[in-house]
Amino acid sequence: MPAARLVARCHWSAVVLAALLVFTGSARAEDGYALWMRYVPLPSALAAERSEQLQEIVAPDGTPTQRAAREELVRGLTGLLGHAPTLRTTIAGDSGLILGTPQTSSLIAPLQDELAELGNGGYLIRRMRRDGRDVILVAARQDIGVLYGAFHLLRMLQTGAPLDRLDVRESPRVALRVLDHWDNLDGYVERGYAGRSLWDWQSLPEWRDPRYTDYARANASIGINGAVLNNVNASAWSLAPDYLVKAAALADVLRPYGIRVYLSARFSAPIELGGLTTADPLDPGVQRWWQRKVDEIYSYIPDFGGFLVKANSEGQPGPQDYGRSHAEGANLLADALAPHGGVVMWRAFVYAHDVPADRTTQAYTEFKGLDGAFRRNVIVQAKNGPLDFQPREPFHPLFGAMPRTPLMMEFQITKEYLGFATHLVYLGPLYEEVLQSDTHARGPGSTVAQVIDGTLEGHALTGMAGVANIGNDRTWTGSHFDQANWYAFGRLAWNPHQSARDIAADWAAMTFSPDPAVVQPIVDMMMGSREAAVNYMTPLGLHHLMARGHHYGPGPWVDGGPRADWTSVYYHRADGSGIGFDRTASGSNAVAQYAPAVAARYGDINQVPEALLLWFHHVPWDHRMASGRPLWDELIARYAQGVRQVQAMQKTWATLNPVEPGLARLPLAIDPERHAQIAAYLNIQRREAQWWRDASVSYFQSISSRPLPAGESAPPHPLLYYQSLQFPSAPGDGR
Amino acid sequence: MPAARLVARCHWSAVVLAALLVFTGSARAEDGYALWMRYVPLPSALAAERSEQLQEIVAPDGTPTQRAAREELVRGLTGLLGHAPTLRTTIAGDSGLILGTPQTSSLIAPLQDELAELGNGGYLIRRMRRDGRDVILVAARQDIGVLYGAFHLLRMLQTGAPLDRLDVRESPRVALRVLDHWDNLDGYVERGYAGRSLWDWQSLPEWRDPRYTDYARANASIGINGAVLNNVNASAWSLAPDYLVKAAALADVLRPYGIRVYLSARFSAPIELGGLTTADPLDPGVQRWWQRKVDEIYSYIPDFGGFLVKANSEGQPGPQDYGRSHAEGANLLADALAPHGGVVMWRAFVYAHDVPADRTTQAYTEFKGLDGAFRRNVIVQAKNGPLDFQPREPFHPLFGAMPRTPLMMEFQITKEYLGFATHLVYLGPLYEEVLQSDTHARGPGSTVAQVIDGTLEGHALTGMAGVANIGNDRTWTGSHFDQANWYAFGRLAWNPHQSARDIAADWAAMTFSPDPAVVQPIVDMMMGSREAAVNYMTPLGLHHLMARGHHYGPGPWVDGGPRADWTSVYYHRADGSGIGFDRTASGSNAVAQYAPAVAARYGDINQVPEALLLWFHHVPWDHRMASGRPLWDELIARYAQGVRQVQAMQKTWATLNPVEPGLARLPLAIDPERHAQIAAYLNIQRREAQWWRDASVSYFQSISSRPLPAGESAPPHPLLYYQSLQFPSAPGDGR
Repeated sequence: MPAARLVARCHWSAVVLAALLVFTGSARAEDGYALWMRYVPLPSALAAERSEQLQEIVAPDGTPTQRAAREELVRGLTGLLGHAPTLRTTIAGDSGLILGTPQTSSLIAPLQDELAELGNGGYLIRRMRRDGRDVILVAARQDIGVLYGAFHLLRMLQTGAPLDRLDVRESPRVALRVLDHWDNLDGYVERGYAGRSLWDWQSLPEWRDPRYTDYARANASIGINGAVLNNVNASAWSLAPDYLVKAAALADVLRPYGIRVYLSARFSAPIELGGLTTADPLDPGVQRWWQRKVDEIYSYIPDFGGFLVKANSEGQPGPQDYGRSHAEGANLLADALAPHGGVVMWRAFVYAHDVPADRTTQAYTEFKGLDGAFRRNVIVQAKNGPLDFQPREPFHPLFGAMPRTPLMMEFQITKEYLGFATHLVYLGPLYEEVLQSDTHARGPGSTVAQVIDGTLEGHALTGMAGVANIGNDRTWTGSHFDQANWYAFGRLAWNPHQSARDIAADWAAMTFSPDPAVVQPIVDMMMGSREAAVNYMTPLGLHHLMARGHHYGPGPWVDGGPRADWTSVYYHRADGSGIGFDRTASGSNAVAQYAPAVAARYGDINQVPEALLLWFHHVPWDHRMASGRPLWDELIARYAQGVRQVQAMQKTWATLNPVEPGLARLPLAIDPERHAQIAAYLNIQRREAQWWRDASVSYFQSISSRPLPAGESAPPHPLLYYQSLQFPSAPGDGR
Repeated sequence: MPAARLVARCHWSAVVLAALLVFTGSARAEDGYALWMRYVPLPSALAAERSEQLQEIVAPDGTPTQRAAREELVRGLTGLLGHAPTLRTTIAGDSGLILGTPQTSSLIAPLQDELAELGNGGYLIRRMRRDGRDVILVAARQDIGVLYGAFHLLRMLQTGAPLDRLDVRESPRVALRVLDHWDNLDGYVERGYAGRSLWDWQSLPEWRDPRYTDYARANASIGINGAVLNNVNASAWSLAPDYLVKAAALADVLRPYGIRVYLSARFSAPIELGGLTTADPLDPGVQRWWQRKVDEIYSYIPDFGGFLVKANSEGQPGPQDYGRSHAEGANLLADALAPHGGVVMWRAFVYAHDVPADRTTQAYTEFKGLDGAFRRNVIVQAKNGPLDFQPREPFHPLFGAMPRTPLMMEFQITKEYLGFATHLVYLGPLYEEVLQSDTHARGPGSTVAQVIDGTLEGHALTGMAGVANIGNDRTWTGSHFDQANWYAFGRLAWNPHQSARDIAADWAAMTFSPDPAVVQPIVDMMMGSREAAVNYMTPLGLHHLMARGHHYGPGPWVDGGPRADWTSVYYHRADGSGIGFDRTASGSNAVAQYAPAVAARYGDINQVPEALLLWFHHVPWDHRMASGRPLWDELIARYAQGVRQVQAMQKTWATLNPVEPGLARLPLAIDPERHAQIAAYLNIQRREAQWWRDASVSYFQSISSRPLPAGESAPPHPLLYYQSLQFPSAPGDGR
């Protein structure tokens, strides 16, 4: 703002400012709504330097996506630099920023071939001299690439990255980067810990909540380009015209941000919605119904992405109800979608009606033989591990095992098995661990990431899905730190080869402060947090020890009920002699589903990583661990370590308290409101980590009949107490 | 702010201001979160005048409630006047504001007797000269009265009321002014249309969301002094220690604002929670269990308010399960609460297992004979009408019929039968109509308001409950205009003799703008809105014609199912000859439950108000109405009128659009964001009003077999179409 105008506006500003600061109470506080797009002022020296470079902006506004990029840049720069940039049609001064495509800018037109190489969504950011001017280009072949590039530049500004010798070339490594919302039409979110669904079906299509646009902005900022609006445990009603009109309104809001809408399809919809007597995929009437339904959907949503399907799993209908295969089921929908360019994301998370000897083997058993049987617009979506989003699992054996079939990764962002929203658990390391796992499918170095990005087998149809942790909570994700999991998922979906630590550092800098004195301790907390949860919940390869149904809190004693594979004892198999699930040749032989090199390592008790020991082996309590301790002692030690790790996070967090003397040290420190909430949540986590430790130790001691190692305190209550605790209203339970 | 400091801060202000305006996107917009406490700047001339008067403030901060009053005043004045007031221990300049009690201020001490007359929560606001100074006093006997007085003064400032000759004396006419939250422990709100429960049980007690404080502020601003935290269809778990700890944390937050916490008690809790084999109120073990449970509750919440109970109604357990009366059930709990000063709010909303000849007679039948049988700390809570929160009902016949029993009013604020959150229906006129109804219990002029405020029968225990419309939606109530219903309930609970129009005017001035050009049209919309809904849903005394279960949309054809009194045909009784429920002596004789003068009027087809005609009479289609039209024509005309009334609201609203040329005319006009949302909601309401009209006309025509009056258009679809519509995911359904 020119100085003269500033003075003229001075009185008005001061008055309005004061009003703004108070008039809605906490509404003006840092409540987390802004996510990583806070755009708070840079330190003044840096702001001055950047202002000089970025004073003038050339950015087209001929399309909705162009306007989104331009508006975001104006919003971001105004916040970061303290004043709005000047929008020009050409750079008039010494320097400036030019956004666009070869069609919108004569300066960018010569880059056409280079941009084409970057593909759909790719972009470059380059600093160059042109006509004596110092120019930064954000250029792409498509508008959406320009929007992604604008967010990239804003991220560099927010994190304090240098802008000299700028030469960024980015293209997405994965085609479908999708959030799966397990949202029911009545607003309930299955496994949701962040309030109710973001989609207010009742006021759609008339009212398009501005929050939908902010959701789209956040996703575009990390490259997410798809959203499945409804739960995989789907209601057929989501395909009824009334709801399609509403979904179309959402699609209209998301479209400028490059986000396509998908729907979960209930396989029996032809019966429930269409009045047919069968949903048999080979029935011509069923095929006609789906074709008409898909045509109808595209009449509402011309760029509809396609269907996500959970079939023949946990009671959902599917092709096996008619003696047909998953491929025949998927192909039914794929054929209907193909003329419109839509895809089917067919989930491999299946398990049989009859309780199997080892549930983790089911998906491989059912799908391996179908390799090559799917249409070209089908992608099979497998969870990261063979069971169900545990704190730690080995990678899913299907990865690398279906070379003729595109495989899509399904991560869970919402923390169903990881303490819900109140536990600080950064999932970046979990995602990274899976993606960096070596399937050995084509020899050493055949990582899961290469399966997912299509390079291993040469697939163009690639995808990564994240089960969203988003609801209408003001923080979006139920806690401030859970925003990092949404963020990390998006970044890794864009490029699965990135480092979880680097992503955490970007996120912390944007979300809290770029000050290294803030970023460093926060990143350290985040990077250790997942291992802490593994330790206090399911150390050494244990899994599925959570309480029944809602999965809140410990339940290693869970037994009985409708299915053995919904119990804890089925998985830990602890007895007087030892603990763990024997998945070697002497047991379920699940290990044989991996490539020989992997199977050999996992199947050998002396080679398997200790982190997966009890996943693959039933191990005697006396087994000598790397630490030199017997397994029993090691197990107890890990539980205690988990609790200590949470205590350490609390200590670290306390050093960042802005109302402590430390404030002077941290000019861009954390605001008191967010600090207080996170501190309270860490208190919950510490209390519950202790509960996990006490209950688990108490239970396993009742099985092992061994004394606690020296220095380990006895649980304060008898086992019956922990077993008696009930939480009938724990959030997110499936229903 | 002094000019010198202002200039020094100028640059900083402008920069931060710019940042504030952008850095969180829509978070800074007028999103409704601030409710009627927006405290936006007054017009500058008025601000200058008020600033002079209110520059100096003396306000104690020795207790939490004192601090709440002081902080609210600082927040409010800073926003309204553009700068913070100066806090002093005595007024030093020519004028100022003094808050306090006889204990905190020597200037107030002499008013002790006068303040005592105003009772608990009462206050006075008076302008006077003292020691040559022009002083405004906000004085009360108790801190809470001072807080109420502070809010009153802020309301006067917000609405532009004159401050000269200020002499306000206020005391609450009703003792218990309570919000009933029908919130389940899993966050679901029964009949809730504003997101999920405000109470995040999962993060309590560690995390006390600042929103709880804003909830308390809003309630205190209108005098609400109690909150029932959980659904009347109660889970026994809400009385378990884990939840009591959480409720205690909420009580801690609400206490400084004068709000007591209550809980809905499940009558069978001794069985479900205590492991007893009976919940018989005469069983000594049951009595001991409740006494211990109540003692335990008070150990957590020393000022616990008491229990709300729904017993032997809609499947809830109760004393009749053991052959005991409602009085015996209520007294069981009352005896346990009495030593601690707690009360029982025992609901009269009951109906028998067997479908009665006329459900509206049940409550009177069951309770009338119990008059005098309840303990002194029991208050019987009756809904405003004898059925269930319909758009229009006559007042409940119990009002005036139980002179020896305190009766509490239960209004519904959430619009279960009035279009949910998307219909603009201001309930002030509904409340007012009921409160001003004359029971004739002690002769003419025995209004329901006098029953409720205790003056008719001399009861000290008095109360008014409102079933809350509050959830975690950003607007709190699911829409901007539904905030007015929360507001009006609170104001009428404080003083049931107030005018709904005056309250609407206050609310509109604070919520949108004090400009009469804004207030006038908005108040007109509000005051007509309830009659519009009556017309397009249930004109002329019709009732309970909503679709089954969720009550979303028209269902006059609803028939069959588990109970006749859950159907529409049970209530409208339309046939070839006429329509309406004969509740005269020739029918159910429900009219006889009213005092003779009332019964005579309602029971006479020539005297009954047309608005209640079909409530009390089965009327031939040819019956001549006041308009001169036959009933059939009148009925159809009313439906059409309802639609036209919504269209008229849309027209009015369009004139307030700030992006239209009208902006110049309205300097403090409505912000674009709220205007847009309300416009979208009015679109929904218009569409649904038309749907109501078309479906109802279509159905009733199928019964009456009469032609539509000239000028009335035929419904665009056949009746079967309207009957085929299904909404399995409509919000708020009981479950």
